[in-house]
Amino acid sequence: MPHIELPAGLPGIRGPMAFSPETARPLNELVNVLLRSNAHRPDSGLSEGERELIATHVSSLNDCFFCQTIHGAVASQHLGDDDWSLVTSVKCDYQQAAISPKMKALLTIAGSVQQGGKSVSPAQIEAARTEGATDHDIHDTVLIAAAFCMFNRYVDGLATWAPDDPALYKYRAQKVAEYGYTHEDHYMPTTGSPT
Amino acid sequence: MPHIELPAGLPGIRGPMAFSPETARPLNELVNVLLRSNAHRPDSGLSEGERELIATHVSSLNDCFFCQTIHGAVASQHLGDDDWSLVTSVKCDYQQAAISPKMKALLTIAGSVQQGGKSVSPAQIEAARTEGATDHDIHDTVLIAAAFCMFNRYVDGLATWAPDDPALYKYRAQKVAEYGYTHEDHYMPTTGSPT
Repeated sequence: MPHIELPAGLPGIRGPMAFSPETARPLNELVNVLLRSNAHRPDSGLSEGERELIATHVSSLNDCFFCQTIHGAVASQHLGDDDWSLVTSVKCDYQQAAISPKMKALLTIAGSVQQGGKSVSPAQIEAARTEGATDHDIHDTVLIAAAFCMFNRYVDGLATWAPDDPALYKYRAQKVAEYGYTHEDHYMPTTGSPT
Repeated sequence: MPHIELPAGLPGIRGPMAFSPETARPLNELVNVLLRSNAHRPDSGLSEGERELIATHVSSLNDCFFCQTIHGAVASQHLGDDDWSLVTSVKCDYQQAAISPKMKALLTIAGSVQQGGKSVSPAQIEAARTEGATDHDIHDTVLIAAAFCMFNRYVDGLATWAPDDPALYKYRAQKVAEYGYTHEDHYMPTTGSPT
C-alpha cells in the first residue's frame, strides 16, 4: 500500500505525478530531453535505445521493479529486442551482453554514479573515451544515471503499486517510443486492460 | 579537475548546467517548484527554510560539498540563522537540533530515501503523521530527498569545482532567497568576487 493516498489505478510514478502535477511537469520534461535523443539531441552519440539501457541498468541496480521494467521495455522496443533477451542480459551481466564496448564503458560509469557521484573515477572516464565516448555522451550518462537515482527513490520511497503483467509494459513501451514522455496519456502503463 | 570540459569559472552545478542548457531548464524548474513553497505551494505545510534543510541534510549524507553548502546557506538565510549554527546542528545531529518534532520525523524519512526508496518504513511515515505531517509534506519530503540524490550525483559524478569561501555562498543565498532558482543569473555562486 502506498505511504500516501494516491489517485487509484495509476501504477508506478504515475500516481505521484497525478498527485503533484506541478512537479510532474519538469520531471516529464527532464526525462523527455534525456531519453529522447532524436527529438532533442539530434547530434547525440547515444541512441534512444542506449539511453534507455542506461536508465534500465541503474533502475535494476536500485532494485526498482517499475522503472527497470518500463524502461527495459522501452529499450527493447527501440532496439528490436522483442523477447527482452538483450535487456535481460544487460541487467544480468552487461560485460557479456551484445552491446558496444563504448556502451559497456558508459554503463560502468552509470553504475558508479548509482553508488555515489564520487565513485566515478578518472580511469573509468578514460576507458569510455578510448571507446569513443564524447563529453556529451559522458555528461548524459552521468545525468541519466543520477536522474534515475531520483526516479527510483520517488517510486519506491512512496511505496507505489506496479502491475506484474509484462504485456502492459510492452504496450506502453510502444506508445512511449512513438509519442515520448511528455504525452501524459501515453507516459506509463495504466491499470487494467492494455487497450 | 572536472571529468569533462565545462565552461570555465562556474562552480558546482552551474558548469554542467551551462554545458547542457536543455537539461538545465527542467532541473531549475523542478528545484524552484520543490524548494520555493511560497511561490508554488501556497498551502504548504513546509516553509522554504524547512525545504532547504531537507535538501541540505540529504546533500550532507551524500557528502556533496557544493550542494550542502549552498543549500545550507539558503536555509540559514530563510531561517534567520546568521552564523549557520542551526544548519550545522542539523547536519551533525538533527535529533538534537532546535527544529520541530515534525521536521525531525521528516528528516528521518529523507535519510531513508537517501539510502534507497525501500528504506522508508511505514513506522517512519506514521511517526511523521503523529507529529502533524500531511500527505503533501511526506510527498514533498520524499521528492526533495530523491531530487538531491540526483543533484548531488550530477555535481560530484562530473567532478565539478566548488569554491571554499563561505562569503560567496552567503552572498548567493541572499539572491536565491530573493529571486529563486529560475533566475539563472542568481542561481548559484559564481567564481571570483561576490560583487
